[in-house]
Amino acid sequence: MSRSREGYLWTPAEATEGLETAAVQSSSPKIKEHYDVIVIGAGFAGLIAARDLSRKYNLNVLLVEARDRIGGRTWTAKVLGEDLEMGGTWVHWAQPHLYAELHRYGLHRNLKTSAGTSAPVSQSFTPASGEVEDVSIPDCGSALERVAARVFSIDGLDSRALMPYPHDPLREPALWTKYDHVTVKDRLNALHDIPQRDKELFESNTNTFGSAPGKDIGFVEALRWYALGGHTFAGVMEMAGIFKIGNGGMTAFARAILEEYTGARLFNTAVSAIRNTSRGVEVTSVHGQTFTAKALISTIPLNCLGDIKFDPPLSPLRQEAVANGHINKGAKIHFKLGETLPGWFWTGDGYGDSSFLFAFSDHNGTQTSGPSGTWCIGFGYNGKLTDKKNSRHILEQFKKNIKPGADIEIYATHDWMNDPYAKGVWACWGPNSVSKYLQELQQHHGRIVFASADWADGWRGFVDGAIEQGQTAVRETLKLVEQPRPKL
Amino acid sequence: MSRSREGYLWTPAEATEGLETAAVQSSSPKIKEHYDVIVIGAGFAGLIAARDLSRKYNLNVLLVEARDRIGGRTWTAKVLGEDLEMGGTWVHWAQPHLYAELHRYGLHRNLKTSAGTSAPVSQSFTPASGEVEDVSIPDCGSALERVAARVFSIDGLDSRALMPYPHDPLREPALWTKYDHVTVKDRLNALHDIPQRDKELFESNTNTFGSAPGKDIGFVEALRWYALGGHTFAGVMEMAGIFKIGNGGMTAFARAILEEYTGARLFNTAVSAIRNTSRGVEVTSVHGQTFTAKALISTIPLNCLGDIKFDPPLSPLRQEAVANGHINKGAKIHFKLGETLPGWFWTGDGYGDSSFLFAFSDHNGTQTSGPSGTWCIGFGYNGKLTDKKNSRHILEQFKKNIKPGADIEIYATHDWMNDPYAKGVWACWGPNSVSKYLQELQQHHGRIVFASADWADGWRGFVDGAIEQGQTAVRETLKLVEQPRPKL
Repeated sequence: MSRSREGYLWTPAEATEGLETAAVQSSSPKIKEHYDVIVIGAGFAGLIAARDLSRKYNLNVLLVEARDRIGGRTWTAKVLGEDLEMGGTWVHWAQPHLYAELHRYGLHRNLKTSAGTSAPVSQSFTPASGEVEDVSIPDCGSALERVAARVFSIDGLDSRALMPYPHDPLREPALWTKYDHVTVKDRLNALHDIPQRDKELFESNTNTFGSAPGKDIGFVEALRWYALGGHTFAGVMEMAGIFKIGNGGMTAFARAILEEYTGARLFNTAVSAIRNTSRGVEVTSVHGQTFTAKALISTIPLNCLGDIKFDPPLSPLRQEAVANGHINKGAKIHFKLGETLPGWFWTGDGYGDSSFLFAFSDHNGTQTSGPSGTWCIGFGYNGKLTDKKNSRHILEQFKKNIKPGADIEIYATHDWMNDPYAKGVWACWGPNSVSKYLQELQQHHGRIVFASADWADGWRGFVDGAIEQGQTAVRETLKLVEQPRPKL
Repeated sequence: MSRSREGYLWTPAEATEGLETAAVQSSSPKIKEHYDVIVIGAGFAGLIAARDLSRKYNLNVLLVEARDRIGGRTWTAKVLGEDLEMGGTWVHWAQPHLYAELHRYGLHRNLKTSAGTSAPVSQSFTPASGEVEDVSIPDCGSALERVAARVFSIDGLDSRALMPYPHDPLREPALWTKYDHVTVKDRLNALHDIPQRDKELFESNTNTFGSAPGKDIGFVEALRWYALGGHTFAGVMEMAGIFKIGNGGMTAFARAILEEYTGARLFNTAVSAIRNTSRGVEVTSVHGQTFTAKALISTIPLNCLGDIKFDPPLSPLRQEAVANGHINKGAKIHFKLGETLPGWFWTGDGYGDSSFLFAFSDHNGTQTSGPSGTWCIGFGYNGKLTDKKNSRHILEQFKKNIKPGADIEIYATHDWMNDPYAKGVWACWGPNSVSKYLQELQQHHGRIVFASADWADGWRGFVDGAIEQGQTAVRETLKLVEQPRPKL
């Protein structure tokens, strides 16, 4: 297994930059100058589009990737014999685009669960001002359902009426658009008869949607998660946080798709400019190479699109969306604790001094002598825990807010916020954004088709959304490639 | 648009056999004798397998179909300008295999709803002994959730614990296998503290899973629907009965898949024998033609497999499963009422004399003068309403049990029970069946791969299950085709 230049591992003795992973890939030996289609980005949107355009539609495709590996904001590192998901992790059969692809490769048989979300034995909460407290799991569960049913019903309409087509939001936008200026916090503030502690628990759980306190998360964005989750809070949590892929994880999944791809591959090659020409599209890499094609699919994330020079420039509205970006700039850190603990789940209030927003145990390590230690995952609030090397702060925050006295043996992370090809984690949108930008971000720009989970219709910010976008891009690109070339 | 020889339309003035539909297709002008793969059946399992094997994997494929049309147990007839789904109808984004394919063709944008299930204004119920009664919709909804939570929790385990992987039931079969001998009725009888009327309402709604009273439906089968539905009864009903495909319906969907198929097509050709030979597989049609291939996919429904001569014979266990068949032999009848009614939903108790088990309004007709009449759909209990031409009985039962005094202008139906290529409707299993037969039915037999929604892992009996099976068959068939041929 190769070592990527990405990923970071801390132990008390030393720190390592770059972790082992099966995601590292080599470029094709020969790269031509002209292709039918160029796909930029080997995350799931790009892999799916490249696979189908090359294998199913027999087009000459070039896949260009800035990193040394496939998977984009998902990849599986091997650390002490464990598969650690450095980015996107949890999957579900109600994520249709993802599950259909998992099943196609037989990988749905490998699903496994995170112990702390599937069957927690204990739950705790750190309020804005205070120490970590135990929470009754059934009481919390029913409080979340009660509050959610109230929050997501507005002006006499329930969530099914407000968002009847959560995978096709632009179909009946009138109702939700009306509330797009509202934040989760605004909505909670408008409900005067709900106990404050129930509101706090609800908000801390909803904050997990976007690594942000409720004052920053759009009500419509939370409503979408709830509608996608089948209109129960337990459903949302199940679909977004319990099941993951065993036996090689997200990287095994990405490799299965890549294996069916029949075109050329170019890694370690970031793109600096994309130009619509009279003959098609021209791409320039940061190394100065240029490639041309009849059409191009860009899967570059929203928060990075501003780094590319587009000619002609993107529309003013899209430029505005790119400049604003999405709000999710959280952190994800894997910890191994020396203690062997039964499944636990924790949330924290974003208005206190906690840098973490939620955390849970994933599984216990095993040795021939039996269970050994607890692998767990902590998610940080936006803009916090931004220095992966500041182990003192990371350990201190974990012990203060989540598990006092924990014996942290190692931690591993991918610093997505400072990653030039991500500049954030999974997309989550604030107020006044979806109604304003979603449709524009989905438009193609000349012969450039834009595909990213960041502006997916359904599970936006998820691998499911990436695959949805990859599939849409295939359909759009086929139309562009089939168009007669303009006369010179 | 062509006319199929299938479908039946009754009006007071006349009856018509054979309805207009875009599902009718012609055979290829030239059919060879040898192929890489022969696919029997142009339902969704067969269409998906034929498409991927021909277009994606470049194999020479022959698609053989007994009917004059594509779609199998789904097709869309044109009656008085309306699209009527003669078989499988409702779809959902939480049916992953189906939704991924719908989205691939952009057809997810055409979803529409059945008025009587999405937003009923009135609900009624006909108890075993009695007249049709009005039911409070919110009271019934909460009663169904209360009873379901009790029914699907057993020995202290809830439905999530009993069936953690509803799309992969053979992964952790120990728990549900333990209860596979129990029927829905047995389970209800064991719960002594639930009001009788709540039990009756629950049973009449659960009966819709298999067109049968609770004494015939396996507890595990109902548990599976509940788990697939996200562990709420409203979820099950939403996923299985609200959304359908507009603009051409199931036939438009089937046509989109067929359009990408690049192999040969042979319609109006039923198969009589399938033989594993030393070189591959040989098929004989009822007309005496023979075709050979390296591998074969049979999508012949469970209840029809006994009509095919297999050589060597199927395993004794599979023969037993085929002889038993599945239990669902219900009827589906479209009615047009002269009255223009707001959305309504009705269920009936299977222990009374009602031939219908549930019915609801689908939509109201429109004319330039405004809304005109109500299109609705009635489902019959197993073995009842078996004579499509007995209009007196059909009308009488509808008026007695569902809508007293209704003015029925027409009805349209496909007589699936007496259809030699279906012999039933969507699969539903009784007790002691899933644990005994499911795994066996999924095995291939020499170079014959079996794919049908009837033994799908997830949404068994649904189009989603058919596509799931088609995808699995692609994977299995590729392995068989790649195997070196045995030496002669």
